[in-house]
Formats: sequence, structure tokens, C-alpha cells
Amino acid sequence: MSEERLEQQICFITEIDKLKAVDRRSYILGGERLENSAEHSWHIVMLAMVLAEHANQPVDLLRVMQMLALHDLVEIDAGDTFCYDEQGNLSKTQRETQAAERIFGLLPEDQRDKFHALWREFEERGSAESKFANAMDRLMPTLHNYNAQGRPWKEHGVRSEQVFERIAPIGDGAQTLWEYAHRVIEDSIEKGYLPSAEGV
Amino acid sequence: MSEERLEQQICFITEIDKLKAVDRRSYILGGERLENSAEHSWHIVMLAMVLAEHANQPVDLLRVMQMLALHDLVEIDAGDTFCYDEQGNLSKTQRETQAAERIFGLLPEDQRDKFHALWREFEERGSAESKFANAMDRLMPTLHNYNAQGRPWKEHGVRSEQVFERIAPIGDGAQTLWEYAHRVIEDSIEKGYLPSAEGV
Repeated sequence: MSEERLEQQICFITEIDKLKAVDRRSYILGGERLENSAEHSWHIVMLAMVLAEHANQPVDLLRVMQMLALHDLVEIDAGDTFCYDEQGNLSKTQRETQAAERIFGLLPEDQRDKFHALWREFEERGSAESKFANAMDRLMPTLHNYNAQGRPWKEHGVRSEQVFERIAPIGDGAQTLWEYAHRVIEDSIEKGYLPSAEGV
Repeated sequence: MSEERLEQQICFITEIDKLKAVDRRSYILGGERLENSAEHSWHIVMLAMVLAEHANQPVDLLRVMQMLALHDLVEIDAGDTFCYDEQGNLSKTQRETQAAERIFGLLPEDQRDKFHALWREFEERGSAESKFANAMDRLMPTLHNYNAQGRPWKEHGVRSEQVFERIAPIGDGAQTLWEYAHRVIEDSIEKGYLPSAEGV
């Protein structure tokens, strides 16, 4: 093992500490502060561990967990683009592609390629693992925002049809979880956490 | 799939959000605030992904990542016991055992048993996976505290012989990483980040 290789690995590990300073729009339980992307990544890794049995197809849980652990690293450079920010989402792909090149580029070449491939697999939503991983990433904010009585939805003027569109890919990864998320959204509308289309 | 089973799983996932409110003694890069245990868990999951090749014996990376993702959940009830707090460490085992029973007990029985077993495996440091996972958990604070110019060591009056003792188990999981950590500590002493035994 060359010393240079280990130094590159440690450099990458030190750099990704910055994900802890990238805030999301969701709140931690209790609402004292916004959640950051490092915590979120941990939470959906746990979510996948707990819910893997609900996947539509059998999945390689190791690859799912790896994808989820690294999927948000690009935000260190590109920031967290709010999923309902239409302007921001136009430039999102380009910003994140550049970020992936820089950040994964800190690793030794073989690991750079492997991590980059995992990130692309997550983004493309083609494989069973990617579909299930994306389902985790979409289910978590639904649970969070419901538990926060819809606070982030209200703060950002999000309407129910946007949320329904946002959670649609959950069904590609796990049908029963899509049905569950659907019930959570309907209950959110009923409780006044989320304005329904009719109410706009 | 029973609805009750899914409700138990979601209840567990909601409960563990509280790990984001458990502060550690280490700082995030830049030092604006203390790191919390959820972020730390994510960071060492990534550390294992990057450094698995350094393990003394081949390891099942899935089990390593699962252990690391859940190893700190007991802190939700038991708090983060500072590794150099002799008083706190006397009662740590009992507090954490009770916490494990309550928190993993939120899950359906089969998952409760599986997660509990993973936590115990981590704590016992017997298997190759556990030894490597523990190496990750001990290496990370060394890197963090070095990058923070020893601030947590200074704030809590930690001496170099305590740190050398603390990092010793890294060698059980990954000899090359123990050697690396040893060099980091020696450099910390030289730079004045950590008082050496002779200096006390």
C-alpha cells in the first residue's frame, strides 16, 4: 500500500466533512434547526436497512447503502437545490456533474471511478438498487415534513400536487411504501399541513 | 406485509432522528460547532467504504457499514459518554444496554434481534468486521482533533498517553491505519496540539 494512496483517501475523508455544513429545508425532530445533508444521508442509510424488504425487486443492500451514503456529496460544491426550486433545478445537473468530478477526483483512480459510477447509478434511477435508494430519498422528507406539521411546505409555498409528483418515484422502488407515502400526504392535506390543489 | 409491521418500522425511523441532537466533543471542520452523533455515524460509514482495503482480514463491508450506522443509537437515551470520562464510563455499559433494549425494541421482533446482535457484535470487538468497524470509530476523532489543532484535547485536558491508549484497538482492525494514527498523534505532540506525557 503506497503512502500516497492513503493520503489521498484521508484527504477525501477530510474534505467531505463539509457536507455537515450544507443545510436542507427540512427540520430535525422538534424543529430547533434545519437538518443538514450529512445527517440526512445517515438517516436514509438507516431507512434502507430497515425497509429493504419492501423493495419491488430483491436489492443488493450494500450497493443501496453505498449509493445513499455518497449521493449528496456533490452538494458540497453545488449546494442543496430545493426540489421545488424550478430555476435552481435548471442548472443543477451541470453544477453537480462538476462537483462529482472534483470531489470523487480526490480519491485514488480506481475508487474515484467506483464512487462516480455509484453516484451516476443513483442519479439515473435505472437499476433495482437505484430505484429503491431513490425511494428512500423521497420517502424521508415526506415523513419529516409530516412530523413537522408541514412547516417546510408552508414556508416554501409547496402545494399538494407538487408533493404527489415528487413522491411518484417511490412506487418504482417500493409500491407498498408509495401507498404509505400517499396516505401520509392525504392525511397532511386533511390536517391542514399542506394546501390541496383545490384550495389554491 | 402487515400494516402494523410497517408502522413499527416507521416509528423506529422517526425515533432515531433524535441522534441528530446528541453532541460529541469533536468539532466540524472550521470549528463553528460541535459535531453530532448522526453526522459522525455517516462519516465513519464513508470512512469504512474508503478504507476497507486496509483491514487486517477481509471483511464483509455490508456488516461493517450496518454496525457503524447503528452503533451510536444507544446514545439517544444514554448520551455520548466522552471516552476520557472515567466516572461516566463506569455506568456506560448499563445505561447503553437499557437504551439498546428500548430503541431496538421499537422494531418488529426479527429486526430488533438482528440490530441488537449487530450492536453487541460492535461492542464486543471479536469478529473481523467488528475490529475493523471499531478501528474506523477510533481513527475518525484522531483525524478530526488533529484538523482542529487539538482543540477538544485541550478543552478536556487530555494527555497523549490517553490518546495512544485510545487508538490502540485500531491495530486490531487495520495495522497500517494504526501506524498512520500513531504518526498523526506524534505530529500533534510536536505541533503542541496535545501535551506529551513528559510535559505533564
